[in-house]
Amino acid sequence: MSAPQPAVLSLDIGGTKLAVGVVTSDGTVHGLLVEPTRREEGPQSVIARLFDMGRRSVARAGLDVAAVGISCGGPLDGPRGILLCPPHLPGWIDIPLGEMARIEFGVPAFLENDATAAALGEHRFGAGRGASTMLYLTISTGVGGGSVVHGKLHRGAAGNGGELGHVVVRPGGRICTCGRKGCLEAYVSGSSIAERAAEALATEPASALAGVSPLTSAEVAEAARGNDQLARRIWDETTEVLGQAVTDLVNIFEPELVILGGGVTRSGAMLLEPVAEVVARDAMPPAAKSAHVVLAGLGDVVCVAGAGVVALDALAGVDHG
Amino acid sequence: MSAPQPAVLSLDIGGTKLAVGVVTSDGTVHGLLVEPTRREEGPQSVIARLFDMGRRSVARAGLDVAAVGISCGGPLDGPRGILLCPPHLPGWIDIPLGEMARIEFGVPAFLENDATAAALGEHRFGAGRGASTMLYLTISTGVGGGSVVHGKLHRGAAGNGGELGHVVVRPGGRICTCGRKGCLEAYVSGSSIAERAAEALATEPASALAGVSPLTSAEVAEAARGNDQLARRIWDETTEVLGQAVTDLVNIFEPELVILGGGVTRSGAMLLEPVAEVVARDAMPPAAKSAHVVLAGLGDVVCVAGAGVVALDALAGVDHG
Repeated sequence: MSAPQPAVLSLDIGGTKLAVGVVTSDGTVHGLLVEPTRREEGPQSVIARLFDMGRRSVARAGLDVAAVGISCGGPLDGPRGILLCPPHLPGWIDIPLGEMARIEFGVPAFLENDATAAALGEHRFGAGRGASTMLYLTISTGVGGGSVVHGKLHRGAAGNGGELGHVVVRPGGRICTCGRKGCLEAYVSGSSIAERAAEALATEPASALAGVSPLTSAEVAEAARGNDQLARRIWDETTEVLGQAVTDLVNIFEPELVILGGGVTRSGAMLLEPVAEVVARDAMPPAAKSAHVVLAGLGDVVCVAGAGVVALDALAGVDHG
Repeated sequence: MSAPQPAVLSLDIGGTKLAVGVVTSDGTVHGLLVEPTRREEGPQSVIARLFDMGRRSVARAGLDVAAVGISCGGPLDGPRGILLCPPHLPGWIDIPLGEMARIEFGVPAFLENDATAAALGEHRFGAGRGASTMLYLTISTGVGGGSVVHGKLHRGAAGNGGELGHVVVRPGGRICTCGRKGCLEAYVSGSSIAERAAEALATEPASALAGVSPLTSAEVAEAARGNDQLARRIWDETTEVLGQAVTDLVNIFEPELVILGGGVTRSGAMLLEPVAEVVARDAMPPAAKSAHVVLAGLGDVVCVAGAGVVALDALAGVDHG
């Protein structure tokens, strides 16, 4: 009889939703639970609900967990398990989430930047299997990213593994949640797409989006698909800006793969295809030729799976450098 | 008696100068020769002079060389030893330089992107010794870059290891030698600094730079140091744009070190200090804290030393991935 495969509890804290599951070393997510974050309730209340979801997920999965993996937007201090000041969770300052989870669940806890965790998840179990150089971009409430170089997760000297959402695509442009102007996130995150559409509606009320409340990026995508003029323009600007940022990243890393994930990528080909076209058109020819732009293979569970891999790897002593 | 340390011939082809030397495994460059490229003479003539310099350098060094390392601006196909279409050498299309050098010198030849080679040189023998994540930017006739991740040179799927000079810093801005608009190179390369100054002189002739011919970035730096108003403005724009690009790279890689090298960095602190200030001001706080911006340790021989390390590593079977 073989030993049961190790299982870990995985907690993902997004700006819009909390997702929790138990991850086994084959990449399966058991007992998945997803609930709205309701970040306006503040860290204490949200973390209490998150931990409650964790207990329920473990009970549903019926597995013993040997560790907790936590993924959250940065900046954070992974080794010390502290959320520093994630822009997608306003007011969450210096939260010792790793230590809180360790006490709550009685096992070691490992905190990782959500996009870094997702990059690891995609590399191990998703679209990035076997890639030597791979980038992952999450286009969600915010925009984050992670990279795999030499076949290994890149964490970087600051431990956030790169903030790919905060490259400046429009100098002096829209204010970003990080405080700078013109970041990628300020144009292509779900919140930014909705905001840009709302701003355009103020002067062009003759759009299918008029009166839609709450206005989300999913509605903008849907209206663009239906050829609503305003929505189409917002969407085209989104894919152009994202394509330009991905082009820069392709020139910088010369990756085999750029994987796009996160809620906004549920729009599928209407996001992926124009972005891939910009890269093919604008990247340096050798880099453009070797880089494939694809959608995440793990879909909505990419961060939960990724945080699970982080914890499983930490238990197994895998060094990501 | 110990075996003599291996030596390799190193050939560096810049847009402005050719530099040739014999490199030993302790990083020493022997028999260094530097001459103007005179790229307008075309590949046949320039390569004949380059190879002649190679023969003279080997004779001066008095060492047997076991291989040739060649560094040149990309894009190039390293494994096949072919220069594809380097923007700093207009008209050099599909030149099989590796094979030509192999035939000329009768030893294996290895072609590498110059900035990638320089990154390796700085990591092995210069300012980057021991760094796990390190970026190198060369600010020269053009702008290129290379990266070390997980302590190893990053070559990328396309083998150019990243074209850090062609990130877009001003969308829709100045035309770059690569054909796109607004690349970093189009603002901060030596040629671009001189061009921007020349354009400004057309409408503001009351500058110390009026009548200077040829007008180079070194003259612009000198006049800026002397507080010439026009030169000061061009220089400040240069350091601001370079600082913004370095900030993006710091956010993307979270490196321990960003090393600036190449001819324009001979201006020293007046380039380095404002760039480092922009990074400290604008990068995400954890990345800003861990990243140090410094000048190259190998100075003008960085590419020759780097191409030497490329060839020595290839002989020794060191895998850079």
